[in-house]
Amino acid sequence: MERVAIIGLGLIGGSIGLAIKRSGVKDLHVVGNARTRETLQRAKKIGAIDEEARTAAEAVRDARLVIIAAPILATRPLFEEIAPALMPGAVVTDVGSTKGNVMRWAKELLPETVHFVGGHPMAGKETPGIDAADADLFREKTWVIVPSVTADQGAVKTVVGLAQLCGAAVSFMDAEEHDSYVAAISHLPLALSSALFSVVFGSAAWPELAHLASSGFRDTTRLASGSPEMAHDIMISNRDNVLHWIDRFQEELSRFRAAIAAGETEPVLEAFAKPQLERDNFMVNGAPRRNLGDPIEKISFSDMMLGSAISGMMRKQTEMLKAAEERAEKKR
Amino acid sequence: MERVAIIGLGLIGGSIGLAIKRSGVKDLHVVGNARTRETLQRAKKIGAIDEEARTAAEAVRDARLVIIAAPILATRPLFEEIAPALMPGAVVTDVGSTKGNVMRWAKELLPETVHFVGGHPMAGKETPGIDAADADLFREKTWVIVPSVTADQGAVKTVVGLAQLCGAAVSFMDAEEHDSYVAAISHLPLALSSALFSVVFGSAAWPELAHLASSGFRDTTRLASGSPEMAHDIMISNRDNVLHWIDRFQEELSRFRAAIAAGETEPVLEAFAKPQLERDNFMVNGAPRRNLGDPIEKISFSDMMLGSAISGMMRKQTEMLKAAEERAEKKR
Repeated sequence: MERVAIIGLGLIGGSIGLAIKRSGVKDLHVVGNARTRETLQRAKKIGAIDEEARTAAEAVRDARLVIIAAPILATRPLFEEIAPALMPGAVVTDVGSTKGNVMRWAKELLPETVHFVGGHPMAGKETPGIDAADADLFREKTWVIVPSVTADQGAVKTVVGLAQLCGAAVSFMDAEEHDSYVAAISHLPLALSSALFSVVFGSAAWPELAHLASSGFRDTTRLASGSPEMAHDIMISNRDNVLHWIDRFQEELSRFRAAIAAGETEPVLEAFAKPQLERDNFMVNGAPRRNLGDPIEKISFSDMMLGSAISGMMRKQTEMLKAAEERAEKKR
Repeated sequence: MERVAIIGLGLIGGSIGLAIKRSGVKDLHVVGNARTRETLQRAKKIGAIDEEARTAAEAVRDARLVIIAAPILATRPLFEEIAPALMPGAVVTDVGSTKGNVMRWAKELLPETVHFVGGHPMAGKETPGIDAADADLFREKTWVIVPSVTADQGAVKTVVGLAQLCGAAVSFMDAEEHDSYVAAISHLPLALSSALFSVVFGSAAWPELAHLASSGFRDTTRLASGSPEMAHDIMISNRDNVLHWIDRFQEELSRFRAAIAAGETEPVLEAFAKPQLERDNFMVNGAPRRNLGDPIEKISFSDMMLGSAISGMMRKQTEMLKAAEERAEKKR
């Protein structure tokens, strides 16, 4: 029986738990920990975990795979808490929306005997929390994987296997690339969504406006309903990239404004026609093709967790640890 | 057999046609006209209209109810075109996203013997055009009605009946109120959506960004896929209100930016927590209650179109017309 630990059982952690459990991989035991007792019990009840752990440290004990699915700024103290309890050779991953800081914290705080592989499944929902968890949340979504320099192939493969088991398509990236990209595609829309709801709600005419709100307003403000704590962590930990994109957006909106203010047909029509055309193209044909080199192989999560691959890894780790201890012994 | 004319058979005109036809009101004959032959044939094929008219003037001939469902700036020339062909006592309505100009054009261009009642169903979809038409498009949506000062009760009731037949909830407003409200709740989100897609698409990293796009980006940019012509007409014809709301939004976004730039927890958390709380409240409990006076009665579209109400109206109009002609005769 191999143990998987999930720390944090919100929408993402809960959905990963449900996806693992649904996959029917045998001899896996999923242990969970969450900030509140209610969430933990709920996760157990809906079948996202097999066992409730009272602390994060308790959850990770003897776990071959540890998934941190907490708000970004909670990840650092969690690393500190679990570090002494992690078993040598354990694979640790996360799902945070920014990667630069997480990679630094992992390097700084996690023992060298474990393998950290950063992750970020690009999936979400209007409603946060365990009750919104869904085994299909990641289906056909991109799951970004950011291996640390010290993570070995087996560890990377384990996380790739996890992403694939959840139905996601893996994309490798370095942390800086990731953070600059998500600022544009994910964090900027979040800031706009919240600012839009905020300014319209702030109007004295809100009661009338609300009655006129249709699906357009609901869709553009959907992200405003996400967890404020998550938004805070994102904005703080990816601050410079977010500010850069807010500035670019303000410039673009000013360009639209100038065209409207001038009141001439061509510039206004052009401002709206180009995004319409390109968005429709994107919706129909998907993202442009990239030359990514070799396609990412299909990896069996079950093999990685239970098979020879990980056994080999573990053996190597245990040997390294033993050697290190012997060296330490000799120095005394 | 009473005739209803629909001029313009895009998403809105087509959906109204489908809703009327589905309602099974007897002895109604729906005549349509559209800019292209393809649209017109398609509308006939999907059952949104009974008969194709080659011109707008031909469509409105002998029609008791005329629905203009064209882009706003096409409405003025359409009024000019149909004015001589409208029968006395006809009820004319529209579905344009701005009302101030439409009401002025109606007063200026339509004969005094017809009743203009402005309308704006607050409903939309990602995809424009007749192929996206849907009899349920207006279900539980708000349909704003802006009666002209000269429209009689029967005419207003006819349009209320049409809106209710489509499943919408009627809200009465004057044109200025309407235009200032929709600038906030509908036109601003449209401008933001298009500017967001535009700035992200304009990035050199677009191929990578596109692969990371998830439902959040898709939802916030959904409105960018609307018809550019419609967007143009909205922005031009509601310019001052739109500019006002773009300015308010830019200020609000700058407030978010300043909080993020300062990097302190409280202001950032607060910026995101308030819209989250209030949006969730809005999504769960709906718009705040307003004191609107008497509720709007349920009106039978069938009665209005075929029953005694409209016959009385028609008789009165015919008498008025006759009297006017007699006065004119005497003056010669």
